[in-house]
Amino acid sequence: MIQQEDTIVALATPNGIGAIGVIRLSGHDAITIAQKVWKGRDLTKQASHTLHFGRIIDGDIELDEVVTSLFVAPRSYTRENVVEISCHGSNYIIESIIKLFIKNGARAAKAGEFTLRAFLNGQLDLSQAEAVADLIASNSKASQQIALQQLRGGFSNQLQQLRDQLVQFASLIELELDFAEEDVEFANRDQLKQLTHTITRVIGSLIQSFELGNAIKNGVNTVIAGRPNAGKSTLLNALLNEERAIVSHIPGTTRDTIEELLNIQGINFRLIDTAGIREATDTIEQIGVQRTMEKISQSALLIYVYDAGEISIADLNSDIENLQKPGITMLVVANKADLLNDEQLAALPYTGKTIIISAKEKQHIDELKHEIYNAAIKDQLTGHETLVTNIRHLQALQKTEEALIRVLEGIDFVTSDFLSMDIKQALHYLGEITGAVTTDDLLENIFSKFCIGK
Amino acid sequence: MIQQEDTIVALATPNGIGAIGVIRLSGHDAITIAQKVWKGRDLTKQASHTLHFGRIIDGDIELDEVVTSLFVAPRSYTRENVVEISCHGSNYIIESIIKLFIKNGARAAKAGEFTLRAFLNGQLDLSQAEAVADLIASNSKASQQIALQQLRGGFSNQLQQLRDQLVQFASLIELELDFAEEDVEFANRDQLKQLTHTITRVIGSLIQSFELGNAIKNGVNTVIAGRPNAGKSTLLNALLNEERAIVSHIPGTTRDTIEELLNIQGINFRLIDTAGIREATDTIEQIGVQRTMEKISQSALLIYVYDAGEISIADLNSDIENLQKPGITMLVVANKADLLNDEQLAALPYTGKTIIISAKEKQHIDELKHEIYNAAIKDQLTGHETLVTNIRHLQALQKTEEALIRVLEGIDFVTSDFLSMDIKQALHYLGEITGAVTTDDLLENIFSKFCIGK
Repeated sequence: MIQQEDTIVALATPNGIGAIGVIRLSGHDAITIAQKVWKGRDLTKQASHTLHFGRIIDGDIELDEVVTSLFVAPRSYTRENVVEISCHGSNYIIESIIKLFIKNGARAAKAGEFTLRAFLNGQLDLSQAEAVADLIASNSKASQQIALQQLRGGFSNQLQQLRDQLVQFASLIELELDFAEEDVEFANRDQLKQLTHTITRVIGSLIQSFELGNAIKNGVNTVIAGRPNAGKSTLLNALLNEERAIVSHIPGTTRDTIEELLNIQGINFRLIDTAGIREATDTIEQIGVQRTMEKISQSALLIYVYDAGEISIADLNSDIENLQKPGITMLVVANKADLLNDEQLAALPYTGKTIIISAKEKQHIDELKHEIYNAAIKDQLTGHETLVTNIRHLQALQKTEEALIRVLEGIDFVTSDFLSMDIKQALHYLGEITGAVTTDDLLENIFSKFCIGK
Repeated sequence: MIQQEDTIVALATPNGIGAIGVIRLSGHDAITIAQKVWKGRDLTKQASHTLHFGRIIDGDIELDEVVTSLFVAPRSYTRENVVEISCHGSNYIIESIIKLFIKNGARAAKAGEFTLRAFLNGQLDLSQAEAVADLIASNSKASQQIALQQLRGGFSNQLQQLRDQLVQFASLIELELDFAEEDVEFANRDQLKQLTHTITRVIGSLIQSFELGNAIKNGVNTVIAGRPNAGKSTLLNALLNEERAIVSHIPGTTRDTIEELLNIQGINFRLIDTAGIREATDTIEQIGVQRTMEKISQSALLIYVYDAGEISIADLNSDIENLQKPGITMLVVANKADLLNDEQLAALPYTGKTIIISAKEKQHIDELKHEIYNAAIKDQLTGHETLVTNIRHLQALQKTEEALIRVLEGIDFVTSDFLSMDIKQALHYLGEITGAVTTDDLLENIFSKFCIGK
C-alpha cells in the first residue's frame, strides 16, 4: 500500500462551487512539478512559507491565475515538500489543474494519504492522525475540543508515560531471562505489582471514559416518548427553538441522517424520531411495544412526557414501569403546567423526581435542558481528564487491560518468561494506539476512512 | 451599499466536508483582528506573502490549528490587508472561527464583496470583475479561456482604445461650444465621421460576437429530433460515450438542470431532452407540433436523425420541411448505415448534405461531432478576436451603437451641442462596461450574483 517516493496531488477543499479551491501537492518533487506548469517567480528558488502570485500554464494555454503556497520539507504537514495552489473555484479549472499535475509526474492521492505520510514521517503519531479526521468531522464544541486535544498529543502523551514505565520493567525482566540459570530478580516484583495496578487503574478509567467520549463525539441518542397529546412535538420545538438555526444553517451536515440535533453546552443530543413511540404508547403492551423498546434500548437517554392535567396515576405508573430500561437514564417531564394551579401541581400523581414544564409557553425549558445535560454528561465528567472516543483505541485498551490482569495474576507464581510475554503484549496493544506498532492493514483501514485531500 | 471602512470576513471555499476550509478577511483591520485571536508569531510584524502556522483561540479555548496567509495592502486581491485562515474542514470549526472574527470586529461579507472592493480599489475594472464570476462558473475549456482573457483585461483594453479616441473628439467639440458665437470647427468633421465609422464597425462586430460568446459561455442548445426508432437514444449515447465521464465525475455541476452535456473541442453542447419531439415527430402536423417547435426554436442547432433503411422520400422531405426554422442550423443524419450496402447508401432519398453514420456500431461519430462543432462554431469564429459573453455588455454596446449612429446621422447637419450629447452618450455606455461610469444600483446588481467569499 505505502509508496512514498512519488508526489501526490488532490483537491483539499470540498467539491462544489466556491470562490476558491485549494489543490495540494506533496512529495519530493512537488515543487519541481509545480514549477513545470508555472509562470511566475522560480518556485524552486523561493523560501519556505511564502506565497506567490502567478499563472498555471499547459504549454501555451493559461489555465488560471493562482496564488501558490510553498512549504519546503521538512517544514510542512507531511514533512515533505508541499505546494498548495489556490485557484478560482470552478470544477473545470480544478480538474484541469489536477490533470496537468498528473501529466507532469504527480499521482492522484488516495484517501487520507497526506495524513498517512505525516504519520509515516513522524509528524503525527497514529492517534493524532486519527484526531485529524475527528476534527474535520467535529460538529460541536465538545467533539471539537476532544479531537483538538487528541491532535495536540494529550492522549498520546498519557499512553507514552504508561508505556515508558512498563518498558523499564520489561527490559529488567528480559535481563532476568538472560540470567535464567542463576535465578536472580532484577525486576522488583512488588514494584512491578504496584505499577501494574496503577496502570491498570488508568487504563480502566480510560475504558470507562469511552461511553462519554463516544456520546460527545457522536452525540447522545435521546428519545422523547409519551402518550398522544402529551405535547411531545411542542416540547421538541421548544427544545430546538434557538439552537435549530445554529445547527442547520450550513447545509450538508449530519442533518440528513438524523431527525434533530440539539446542542446543550457544546454537547450534541440526537433527538431520535419517536413516531413509533408516539403511536405505540397508548397501546404500549400491545403490538408497537417491541419497536418502541428497540428505539429506547439504542438510546442513552429517555425523556418521558405526560400531560399533567390528564393522566391517571395508574397510566402514569404503568408507562414509567414499561419504559424503564437498565442503563438508560429516564427523565420524567410533566407538561402543560400552564393549565394547572399550584394546588393541582402539588398533587401530581408521580412521586419520583419530575421536571414540571409548559412546552407551549416555553416555561422551564432551560431547566429541562440543564437536567438533560446533567443526566447524560455531568456525573461522567468527574475524574476523566482524557476521553477515549475511538472504538479502535477502546479495543486496544481492553486488550491491554486483559494482558495487565494476566501480569497481576501471574506476578507471584509464573516465571520471568511468561511475565515478559504478558508485559510485551500489553506494550504491543498500547503501541497500536499511537502507531508505535502497526501493520499495513491497520493503516489501510484507518486512512481509507479519511477524505481525499487530507 | 458600499462601506469600505470595515473589515469583512467569509468562507472562500465551498460548504461541505473537505480536508480544509479557507476563511478570508479583508480590510484595514484584517491583520489586527486576526492577531487578537491568534497564538503564534505576531502577525502584525510579519512580511506580506508569508505563511504562518499557529492556533486560533477564543480566550482560553483553542478552536483549531491553522495555517495563516498574510497579504499586506496593497499587495492583495482587494488591495486591502488580507488574511486567509486555512483551517480543518469542519463546518463547526469554520462557523466558530467566522463568529469569532465577527465578535472581534469583522463583519460578514456580502456576496461578491471582496471582488467589489478589488474593483473600487482599482485592482480590476468592472468587466474584469465580472470575469472572475465567469471564471468560477466556467465549465469548459472555451468558457474558461474567454473568462480568463477578459480577466486579463483583453476586452477592457479594446474598449479603452475606442473610448480614448472618442474622448479626444468630445473635448474638441466641447471647445467649439465655448466658442459657439464664433462658429469655428476645432473638430474636423471628416475625421470624426471616419473615426465614428470605424468605432461603429468594431462595436458592431463585438455585438455580433455575442451569439457565439454566449454559446461558448452557456453551451450550445442542441436538439436531437427524429421519428421513433430512428436511433436517437443510441446516437445520444454514442455521442456522449467518452465525454460523459469527463463532464460528470465531479458532482454538483450544471448537470442537475440540463439533460446532457457534450463537450466537443472545448465547447459545451447542451443536448436538450427531446422526449417531446420523439413522441411528436410521427404526428408532426398534429398536437405535439407546437411543443416540439418551441424546443427547437430555443435551440441553436438541430440534429435530425432518420433510419436510412426505412424512411420514404415523402416522409423525409416532410420532416425536414417541418423542422426547418430560420436562424437554426440543421444537420441531417442518416442512421443505421451498417444495415445497408454501398448501393443502398448511394440511393438515400435526401438530396441535401447528409452525414451517414451508424450510432449502434459507432461509425462516423467523430465525423458527426466535427460537423456539429463546425455548424455551431467554426464559421462564427472568423474575425472575432474578442467575444462578448455578458448580456450587460451586449446591451451597453447596443446603446453605444445607437448613439454612434445618431452621431453619424447628425454629423453634417446638427450643431456641436447635439453632436456633443450623442458622443457623450456613447462614451457613457462604453464606460459602463468597464465601470468608468457606475451607479450603486449597477454594482449591487452585478456583485449580488457572485458567491459569498469572492
